[in-house]
Amino acid sequence: MFKLRYYLFSLLVPALFFACQENTNSSQSESKTTQTKEIEEQPYAIVIHGGAGAMQRGMMSDSLENAYKATLEKAIKTGYKVIEDGGEAIDAVTSAINILEDSPLFNAGKGAVLTHDGTNELDASIMVGKNKDAGAIAGVKRVKNPILLAKAVMENSPHVLLSGAGAEEFAEEQEIELVDPSYFYTEERKRALDKVQQNEVTPNNSSAFVDMDLSDYKFGTVGCVALDKDGNIVAGTSTGGMTNKRWNRIGDSPIIGAGTYADNETCGISATGWGEFFIRGVVAHDIAARMRYGKASLADAAKEVIQKNIPEMGGDGGIIAIDKEGNIVMEFNTDGMFRASIDKNGEMQVAIYEE
Amino acid sequence: MFKLRYYLFSLLVPALFFACQENTNSSQSESKTTQTKEIEEQPYAIVIHGGAGAMQRGMMSDSLENAYKATLEKAIKTGYKVIEDGGEAIDAVTSAINILEDSPLFNAGKGAVLTHDGTNELDASIMVGKNKDAGAIAGVKRVKNPILLAKAVMENSPHVLLSGAGAEEFAEEQEIELVDPSYFYTEERKRALDKVQQNEVTPNNSSAFVDMDLSDYKFGTVGCVALDKDGNIVAGTSTGGMTNKRWNRIGDSPIIGAGTYADNETCGISATGWGEFFIRGVVAHDIAARMRYGKASLADAAKEVIQKNIPEMGGDGGIIAIDKEGNIVMEFNTDGMFRASIDKNGEMQVAIYEE
Repeated sequence: MFKLRYYLFSLLVPALFFACQENTNSSQSESKTTQTKEIEEQPYAIVIHGGAGAMQRGMMSDSLENAYKATLEKAIKTGYKVIEDGGEAIDAVTSAINILEDSPLFNAGKGAVLTHDGTNELDASIMVGKNKDAGAIAGVKRVKNPILLAKAVMENSPHVLLSGAGAEEFAEEQEIELVDPSYFYTEERKRALDKVQQNEVTPNNSSAFVDMDLSDYKFGTVGCVALDKDGNIVAGTSTGGMTNKRWNRIGDSPIIGAGTYADNETCGISATGWGEFFIRGVVAHDIAARMRYGKASLADAAKEVIQKNIPEMGGDGGIIAIDKEGNIVMEFNTDGMFRASIDKNGEMQVAIYEE
Repeated sequence: MFKLRYYLFSLLVPALFFACQENTNSSQSESKTTQTKEIEEQPYAIVIHGGAGAMQRGMMSDSLENAYKATLEKAIKTGYKVIEDGGEAIDAVTSAINILEDSPLFNAGKGAVLTHDGTNELDASIMVGKNKDAGAIAGVKRVKNPILLAKAVMENSPHVLLSGAGAEEFAEEQEIELVDPSYFYTEERKRALDKVQQNEVTPNNSSAFVDMDLSDYKFGTVGCVALDKDGNIVAGTSTGGMTNKRWNRIGDSPIIGAGTYADNETCGISATGWGEFFIRGVVAHDIAARMRYGKASLADAAKEVIQKNIPEMGGDGGIIAIDKEGNIVMEFNTDGMFRASIDKNGEMQVAIYEE
């Protein structure tokens, strides 16, 4: 089905190109021009993040930095190959995120940070821009790749957001891979938890959760946004949440509109940061709404929200996004953000710190 | 402190009124005129809902209808008295919602519907428009008044959204009233669950959750929005979710941006409806964003979202809202919505069906 469509598309391109040349030159109609461009060439692109935080240059060893970059590169290339081959954005997003989830380096899947009680609670969400379909899960303890469960919730349940033990029961029914909770334990995360808890003043002191002096990034959430050759935008986010989180806290990652949003008319977005502020700011949807109703560009909308609104509220973090024309934005107000992209010209970027 | 401010305000009003008369007449400066109006008179108003659904005229006995109306009237008057006396919008919202939560008639607190397993899982959220502070809880089983726990999360934790057992642990620390889960059991809800489950085809059949032929409303979520004499807007929502929900499903009610949103620059909103669609549509924030970035009126924004976008996606429900000028909107695309309001002129409305 897809192949056929692609074949017809190939035949149409040259014909329409010539047919529309005159039209483009002679007519001022914006809608016609836009239509022409879309038919001429549907850009495709992909972007990922591995979390934003207080990582300063020189803080990590070269070998650790290289390990991060190598995993980011592997993930972005894997996702890109899917859309380059004419596959769907949703498969690009899940395959890229799976690589980040399977790495102990990022705060998602294998590398999830520890809660106050020394356990893991994983959150994830995914949204499809074509029909605004969405799936999400919060607080699962045994799901190896939470993004796949979020996708299953979207595709095979009447619900959008499942949580805790119920979400795991659904995972079993869906034959999603479950692991023993010990799978998520890493020495690295235990040390981070110990350090945060040593600095904890009172359980209600919010600074205990975000001590910026800690030489450990707090927000290593992962995410991916892809735009495929059909013009469909998909965004996904997966996280272990915040080190030392309590009371079955849910952050912004599984919240549609806060941590993840996709709409083919505007853009797809995945966020990483201090989740409480991203929820209150309804960050992902706010960026899309500035484009849709305020006619802002993706770059301007993201800049305003991430560089102004979130810091004014007292929070920090970043977002990755792609608009319908394939423009990529990676905006953050922290020292760094693990990130990679392959743009509509096929050019790859892999970065950690501010350039 | 508040009393003093109010006293000074009383002294200022006549002085500013005369001082600004000429200014208003001679100057075209919009900002000055607006400022003058605000100082002259800060409107205050309140609106509540008790859920939207397929309640058709004649379906309920007169005595049941009267019971609904009496409870709605008690709740709206209780909330209104708080702001009329110069109290804060947040106290108006929680006191009105507490009355609806304590009634077995509404799907929140005492009258919460039953899950697939015959238990109760309660969700709630609250947001303050002044500083966009927010608190929410999902999936609690023993909290008598979930809206009070949402308020405590906002005021006394560094988090926005807590869930399940962890949220209840936090409730205990906060000395929020807990009850035995049997408190929430009503014969009415058991019959509703039995009826839905008799009609259930497969666990994954979404129609099982929303059989519109059932002579039972599905969405009896409650909510309140209030604008106080300080110009602060607060919105809150509390629910038992959807009859027969499974897998620790979380709906839109505890999701900031979907079921609840408040921003003093635009409006406060509480939603009730088929939660999955309200999450995907980021309904509450979308209405506010249409006002903020698209310069729409609250009435137009709400109409577009509730009468067009949500039905186009396949969902239904409604919202209540108040904008910063005190304009009230109660928009729904279902047969009816339990609702009441006291507007900026002090006029009360209590209604169930479309007028």
